[in-house]
Amino acid sequence: MLDQIRIILVETSHTGNIGSVARAMKTMGLSQLVLVSPKELPDGQAYALSAGASDLLATAKVVDSLQDAIADCRLVIGTSHKPKSQDHQVLNPRQAAELAVPELQQGPVAIVFGRESNGLSNDELRLCNYHLCIPTSAEYTSLNLAMAVQVVSYEMRMASLDQQPEAEASAEEKTSYPTSEQLEGFYQHLQTTLDQTGFIIRAHPGHIMIKLRRLFTRARPDEVELNILRGILTSVQRFGRVGNSTITPEQQ
Amino acid sequence: MLDQIRIILVETSHTGNIGSVARAMKTMGLSQLVLVSPKELPDGQAYALSAGASDLLATAKVVDSLQDAIADCRLVIGTSHKPKSQDHQVLNPRQAAELAVPELQQGPVAIVFGRESNGLSNDELRLCNYHLCIPTSAEYTSLNLAMAVQVVSYEMRMASLDQQPEAEASAEEKTSYPTSEQLEGFYQHLQTTLDQTGFIIRAHPGHIMIKLRRLFTRARPDEVELNILRGILTSVQRFGRVGNSTITPEQQ
Repeated sequence: MLDQIRIILVETSHTGNIGSVARAMKTMGLSQLVLVSPKELPDGQAYALSAGASDLLATAKVVDSLQDAIADCRLVIGTSHKPKSQDHQVLNPRQAAELAVPELQQGPVAIVFGRESNGLSNDELRLCNYHLCIPTSAEYTSLNLAMAVQVVSYEMRMASLDQQPEAEASAEEKTSYPTSEQLEGFYQHLQTTLDQTGFIIRAHPGHIMIKLRRLFTRARPDEVELNILRGILTSVQRFGRVGNSTITPEQQ
Repeated sequence: MLDQIRIILVETSHTGNIGSVARAMKTMGLSQLVLVSPKELPDGQAYALSAGASDLLATAKVVDSLQDAIADCRLVIGTSHKPKSQDHQVLNPRQAAELAVPELQQGPVAIVFGRESNGLSNDELRLCNYHLCIPTSAEYTSLNLAMAVQVVSYEMRMASLDQQPEAEASAEEKTSYPTSEQLEGFYQHLQTTLDQTGFIIRAHPGHIMIKLRRLFTRARPDEVELNILRGILTSVQRFGRVGNSTITPEQQ
């Protein structure tokens, strides 16, 4: 089950860290590693520091963008140095694991780690359903990347050990969530529709769309709800084309 | 309080590991480091890897025997690779932290880590009140020394945070939320609009509206977001009245 946890490293600078991350993951039973535009591909140093976890480096996927890395994920958790966020619920590693592990049966869950120097950008964090912050000491927050992966992987393992006995339990009542790709399709549909209704100006969709994305990321619609939302958008587009039939019957 | 946790490293081989341990401890607010007969004293590599935690290296005590290191401790927990022990209760890191943290008010609590190669000897483990085993994957147990200290220190910090009364939180960053009445106004507006677009049938708004209410209740829009949502509804209503202007210019 833990093989459905996808550890994503964004623009890692030091290949040694990638190796240490692989080792940290494997000690906890994780195996899926994705590298988004690493400064350098895993080299000798990465393999040396991975110790017996070189298989994770060999099978690591390398992609160009975070969007590609999370496209098939229904739950995306982004790590952040800031313990608070105005627009996202911030979880500690334990809460993140309690949330993520029960969803592994549905497919991959992404945990995203940013650059050694300055973490994830705001744009990247906006792609995440939740933010995760490791509660470091206020006086010294300099947690090494691989150490952060170790702590999070450890919590994932602890949560999976907790789960095992009860396991399959309520498999049927599980909510099914859309993938990031499906959500992206919804946002495009929303933007097009709001452009047509004149609510947003084609040239400057930015600010409003960011706010709407934030709202829906927080709401985390399931597949049924997303279908309703898309149905609403389609009805609005048709409404605009035919007009209100009581006012413009001639157009029907 | 966490300064009463004493991390004890027995006969560490690599000074780099001592430096990484210092860094791991400091990120979690621990500060007491004791080295029992290290192969070498902290050197340049140790200081380099300690990053901003060199103060822990500078104040680390070096002693000749584990007995000396634990002499003033009331509770001694020894880490072990073996998940079972005939004569000791074996704790996972969380259980160890739940046991240790409440005792910190009485004095130092020791957590003992063995050699990189082969851990603690049976004689050393017998000096400990409890054994601690980090639940690694059965296929790959090769947890780096500093990683093990990171995980244990993290659990100590989590347990100490649990003990503290809920922080005063972020009173100033409070978001302003709409009243129930304002939300009700939004739902009425939404229902009217969806009736106009033909998405819901006037006679049976029930099911869809219940689902939409559930979605927005979960999202909990703030006042700014609610204004955006109402603005969208108004734009949709205007869109239907005037139709798509490129199709029906005569209506403007």
